[in-house]
Amino acid sequence: VVESINRTHANPLFLPDAALAPALRATGDILEAVRHAEVVVSATPSHVLRSVMGRAAPGIGGEGERGGVLVVSVSKGLEPERLGTPSSVLAEVLPAGTPVAVLSGPSFAREVYDRQPTAVVAAARERQVAERVQQVFATHSLRVYSHTDVVGVELAGALKNVIALAAGILEGLGLGHNTRAALITRGLAEITRLGMALGADPRTFAGLAGMGDLMLTATGSLSRNRTLGVELGQGKKLADVLAERATVAEGVNTARAAVALGRRHGVELPVAEQVTEVLFEGKAPRDAVTDLMERALKAEQWQ
Amino acid sequence: VVESINRTHANPLFLPDAALAPALRATGDILEAVRHAEVVVSATPSHVLRSVMGRAAPGIGGEGERGGVLVVSVSKGLEPERLGTPSSVLAEVLPAGTPVAVLSGPSFAREVYDRQPTAVVAAARERQVAERVQQVFATHSLRVYSHTDVVGVELAGALKNVIALAAGILEGLGLGHNTRAALITRGLAEITRLGMALGADPRTFAGLAGMGDLMLTATGSLSRNRTLGVELGQGKKLADVLAERATVAEGVNTARAAVALGRRHGVELPVAEQVTEVLFEGKAPRDAVTDLMERALKAEQWQ
Repeated sequence: VVESINRTHANPLFLPDAALAPALRATGDILEAVRHAEVVVSATPSHVLRSVMGRAAPGIGGEGERGGVLVVSVSKGLEPERLGTPSSVLAEVLPAGTPVAVLSGPSFAREVYDRQPTAVVAAARERQVAERVQQVFATHSLRVYSHTDVVGVELAGALKNVIALAAGILEGLGLGHNTRAALITRGLAEITRLGMALGADPRTFAGLAGMGDLMLTATGSLSRNRTLGVELGQGKKLADVLAERATVAEGVNTARAAVALGRRHGVELPVAEQVTEVLFEGKAPRDAVTDLMERALKAEQWQ
Repeated sequence: VVESINRTHANPLFLPDAALAPALRATGDILEAVRHAEVVVSATPSHVLRSVMGRAAPGIGGEGERGGVLVVSVSKGLEPERLGTPSSVLAEVLPAGTPVAVLSGPSFAREVYDRQPTAVVAAARERQVAERVQQVFATHSLRVYSHTDVVGVELAGALKNVIALAAGILEGLGLGHNTRAALITRGLAEITRLGMALGADPRTFAGLAGMGDLMLTATGSLSRNRTLGVELGQGKKLADVLAERATVAEGVNTARAAVALGRRHGVELPVAEQVTEVLFEGKAPRDAVTDLMERALKAEQWQ
């Protein structure tokens, strides 16, 4: 990938037909990559975030010319076992005081590349850090809203992949739009409940990083988590689906992490629990849907 | 339609290939239709609701054997000029004390008929009226959640059609999933703002009647409002599109009503305002999108 980017200005793995800026240089040496950077974008899969960015840390720390490097996380998942969000992992491995922001929202890479109008949120604990990200990333076609609910934006970005997986499973079973809309709505409700238990602002989940990205990921044809769900719904086994893929579907790991987080905080997550049983316990997708639908009639509430 | 339903047990206008129960009888005489009914479902388009149900009222009132008839509204719009919700119009034309509930949520008729798992909400000011609707309508494949935020459920059901129209316009212009997800998210935010100004519970808009139905209507292929938007985005004129249709796209009237309601209550509705300009003032759809995207960068908030 490094050679291809430097020689032909294309990434053979992702969007191979998208020409990259000739000034863009790739390197396999992470310390070289971050040295002298003003802004570092961390885009590693969640399960290797700690080790990868831990190796980058010595090149990021210290007093830069402009008072330190800004690190922007775009990972969408949770750390296995410890269940931390990407920004909390970064806070542990980076030098103390490094400003960290997260960027999230409905943004298929292909469409961002094609300059389709896109809107995302940049969240940081301090508003001025979020506003710096806004200034760095905003273009004519990319709107960046600033936000301070970092944990809400990160949980929404991670957990939406689990609901997208479930939506794909429904689709693979041949179920229709009504069922999918109900699932996504109830799924957002359970994500919101879990987020609130972890200190997030419920309104974040109704915004771009929550509902917006969930809708995109659960209904869009370019979504890896949704298409993985479709194959499961059609009867394929998880191991077989994963063996055929070069890319990461974060929802698989996040489903397990979400259920663990829910247990830890006493939050019921019916959708994530059914997805986990389908993924890891061999439950038939059809039975999972039946179990979800047949819960007792009750009032619509999620607090 | 009446003759066809009684003779061939099919409705030639809507879902013509769906066989109706032979016991189902149609009549063109509205007083005959409601006489002796325990439950009356009011499904007239919003702009003729007052006149149609005004004519039905004498057959509904009075003391029934079981303490009065239950009226369930499924209209999704606002009364032109007066801007009332369907249940408020019904409260005016029906005998005082008639219990009125509303039924709403992501439910394409075709899929309900096919017994696809579907979830909706039944809302009434008194919880026990909503629970009666729940008991009457719930089946193995149709989940009915009870709700008491009547105005929230009705506003969500009406206003989502305006956002679906806007989503269709984007699609007709050839824009992608990122843009649509952003529009729907910001659209739900403005609907929520307007609802709160009118006394609705913001959580209603994150539920089945809000986000759920909006997602269905704005992205589903069976949506009349969305497909009308697509034709406008492709450059057709509103008059020409409407001339080719036998059915009602409520979003056209509701766009105007929403903007009027927003002015009355001092609520900014950027999406509805752009839709209204495209529909009634000849604004080019491309310019409407540009105007929406180019508003100044700001924090994501909607209160």
